[in-house]
Amino acid sequence: MNETAAIDWLNEPFVIPNAKTRQAAQARQAQLTKPSGSLGRLEDIAIHLASLQGTLRPDVERVQITIFAGDHGVAAEGVSAFPQAVTCEMIRNFANGGAAISVLAQILGVQLEVINMGTAQDTEAFHNVSDYRLGPGTANFIHEPAMTIDQLTQALQAGRHAIERTHSMNTQLFIGGEMGIANTTAATALACILLDTEAVLLVGPGTGLDTHGIAHKTTIIQRALDLHSNHITSPLEALRRVGGFEIAALTGAYLRCAQLGIPVLIDGFISSVAALTAEQLRPGMKNWLLFSHTSAEPGHNLILDRLNAKPLCNLGLRLGEGSGAAITLPLLRMACTLHNEMATFSEAQVSGKTEIK
Amino acid sequence: MNETAAIDWLNEPFVIPNAKTRQAAQARQAQLTKPSGSLGRLEDIAIHLASLQGTLRPDVERVQITIFAGDHGVAAEGVSAFPQAVTCEMIRNFANGGAAISVLAQILGVQLEVINMGTAQDTEAFHNVSDYRLGPGTANFIHEPAMTIDQLTQALQAGRHAIERTHSMNTQLFIGGEMGIANTTAATALACILLDTEAVLLVGPGTGLDTHGIAHKTTIIQRALDLHSNHITSPLEALRRVGGFEIAALTGAYLRCAQLGIPVLIDGFISSVAALTAEQLRPGMKNWLLFSHTSAEPGHNLILDRLNAKPLCNLGLRLGEGSGAAITLPLLRMACTLHNEMATFSEAQVSGKTEIK
Repeated sequence: MNETAAIDWLNEPFVIPNAKTRQAAQARQAQLTKPSGSLGRLEDIAIHLASLQGTLRPDVERVQITIFAGDHGVAAEGVSAFPQAVTCEMIRNFANGGAAISVLAQILGVQLEVINMGTAQDTEAFHNVSDYRLGPGTANFIHEPAMTIDQLTQALQAGRHAIERTHSMNTQLFIGGEMGIANTTAATALACILLDTEAVLLVGPGTGLDTHGIAHKTTIIQRALDLHSNHITSPLEALRRVGGFEIAALTGAYLRCAQLGIPVLIDGFISSVAALTAEQLRPGMKNWLLFSHTSAEPGHNLILDRLNAKPLCNLGLRLGEGSGAAITLPLLRMACTLHNEMATFSEAQVSGKTEIK
Repeated sequence: MNETAAIDWLNEPFVIPNAKTRQAAQARQAQLTKPSGSLGRLEDIAIHLASLQGTLRPDVERVQITIFAGDHGVAAEGVSAFPQAVTCEMIRNFANGGAAISVLAQILGVQLEVINMGTAQDTEAFHNVSDYRLGPGTANFIHEPAMTIDQLTQALQAGRHAIERTHSMNTQLFIGGEMGIANTTAATALACILLDTEAVLLVGPGTGLDTHGIAHKTTIIQRALDLHSNHITSPLEALRRVGGFEIAALTGAYLRCAQLGIPVLIDGFISSVAALTAEQLRPGMKNWLLFSHTSAEPGHNLILDRLNAKPLCNLGLRLGEGSGAAITLPLLRMACTLHNEMATFSEAQVSGKTEIK
C-alpha cells in the first residue's frame, strides 16, 4: 500500500506527558490523610492523568464519547447472532436515547456523538447522527480487502476530525465507541495478524454465538487470514484488508489524541484492537491510553497483555458502544476529586506514620 | 456469655427478598436493546437490587454512610504503623470534610454520619460527630476480653439504632465504615476464630506494616487466640473477646438492615469480618449484602470465599472508612439507571437475536 500524503498526518509527533507534574502529583498523594498507597489504582490514575494533562489538579468532567458505526461485508457469512439490520436500528437507538451508551452519557453529563461510517441499508440521514458514509459497509474480506486505500484513508480521517472538533471544545478525556454487526469478526481477524496468533486462540462469542457459531466464525476468519496474510507488511495494510470503517476511525482518533494531548479511556475488545493497531503503527502512543475494563470476550486478555495494559475493572461486560469505558468513568472522576480535595496531614493536623525506632 | 433480653432483637426475622420481582427484573433485562448478558455484573446487580427493594425499578440514590470509630487496647502492643492518636484526629477529619470518605460522600451526594464509639484520648465531643462512647477504647485482648458483655450489647445496639434512624428516612442502601488504629489486628483475630484458621494465613500489613511488623502482629494475634479460643462457643463471644466497638456496631447494623429490608454495600476487610460475624450468628442474613471490592489486605479473599461473595472490583484499596463501597456506588447507580431507562427491543424497533434455523 502506498502511504500517500493523505495519511502523512499519522506521523506527526505525540505530546510528551509531563514528568515533573507526575512527580509533584506523587508527592501530593503521599501527603493526603490516608496510609500511603491505600487508594490503590485510584492513586495511579490521578497521578497518570496529572502527567497527561500537565496539571497538579487533573479533571475529567468534560468528556467526549464518539461512536463510530459501520457495516461489515463479512456479515454475509453468518458470523453474528444478530441480523445486519441491527446496525442501522442501533444507530437510531443511540440517537434517540434508548441504548446503553445513550443512558450512560445522560447520567454522566457527557457529550455523545454518533457517526455513521456506512451501513448496508441505504438509509436516510438519521437525526442527531453525523454522516460520514464511505460505502454500504466494507467488502466481504473472505473474498477481497475490506476497504479500498481511499476508504481506509477517509476512515482514519473521520477519527482525526472527530478529535479535532472535540479538542477545540477543551475536552479532557476521550472515549471511543463502536457498533457494527460482525465487527468482532473483523477485530479478531485483525488481532490475529497483529499478534501473529491463530484464530482459534482469539475467537469468542461476540454478541452471543453458541459453540457451533464460534467454530464457524473461526473457519471464516482462518479463510480470511489464508487469503490476506502474505500480502500484509504493515499494520495499516492489515487494517485495510480485514478491519472495518469504525475500527479504522477509532485508530485514527486514538492517534490524534496522542498528537493533541487528550487522554483516552479505552473500552473493550474492539476498541483495544484499534488501540493495538495504533500502537503498532506508532509505538509510544499508548502513553495516552487508560484501559477501563477486561471484556468477557476471551481474546481481550491477549490484546491487553501485548499493550501491557491493566484495566481497572472486570465486570463481565461485552456490549461495546464505549459502554464499559463510560461505566468506569466515575472511578476516574473520583480519583481526581480525591486527589484534588482531600486534606493533607498538615492541613488536618493528623499524625503521620510512626517512625521505626 | 448470657444472651440477655438486650440482645433478643438479634433474633428477629429477616425480610425475604421478592422472588417474583427478581423474575420480572430478569425478564426486563432480556428485553433491553443489548445482547442478553452483555452488561455482565451490572445486570446481576440490577436484578438483585430489584428483588431486595421489591420493585421493578431499583434505585440507590438515597444512601446512608455511617462510620463507626473506636480505639483498641491491643494498639499498645505496637501492631499499627500509625500512633493511636490518629483515631481521634481522623474522626475530626471525617467531620471536617478532609478524609477520603468525606470527599466521596460529598461527590456522591449521600448522607455521612460519624459515630464515636470510644477513643483512648479523653476528647471533647466533636462537632458533627454522634457520641456513643462506651469507654476509652477496648481492653487489650492479649490480657482479657476486649469488651464487657454490657459494652458488646451496647455496641450492637449502636449499629441497630443507626439503621433505625436511617430507615425512617427511607434509605435505599446502607454503607458501613470503620476507623480505629489497630482494628485490622482485632478483625484478623476475629476472622481466625470464625474461619478456624491460623493467624499466619490471615495477617496483612494493615495501614502499612513492613515484614517485621507483620511478624510481630502475627505473634500478638496468636497470643490472643491462645488465651481466648477455649472460652469461645459462639460468634458473639468471639466478637466480645477479640473484636472491637466498631466491628460490633457494624455487625449489629448489618443484621438490622436484613431485618428491616435495607440492602447493604459491604466495604473491605474489616467490614467483611463484621459481615461474616453477622452471617455466622444468623445464617441467611447475607442475602442482603452486596460486596463492593476485594481489598489489598491478603486475608480478605478467605473471608469473601466463606461468604460466597464476589465483589465487583479489585482496585487495590485498603483504606477502610467505607471508602471502597462508596467508590463502587456509581456502578450500582448506573446498573439501576440502565435497567430502568434503556429502551426495549420493541420500543426501539430493534431486531432481536437471529433464530437458529
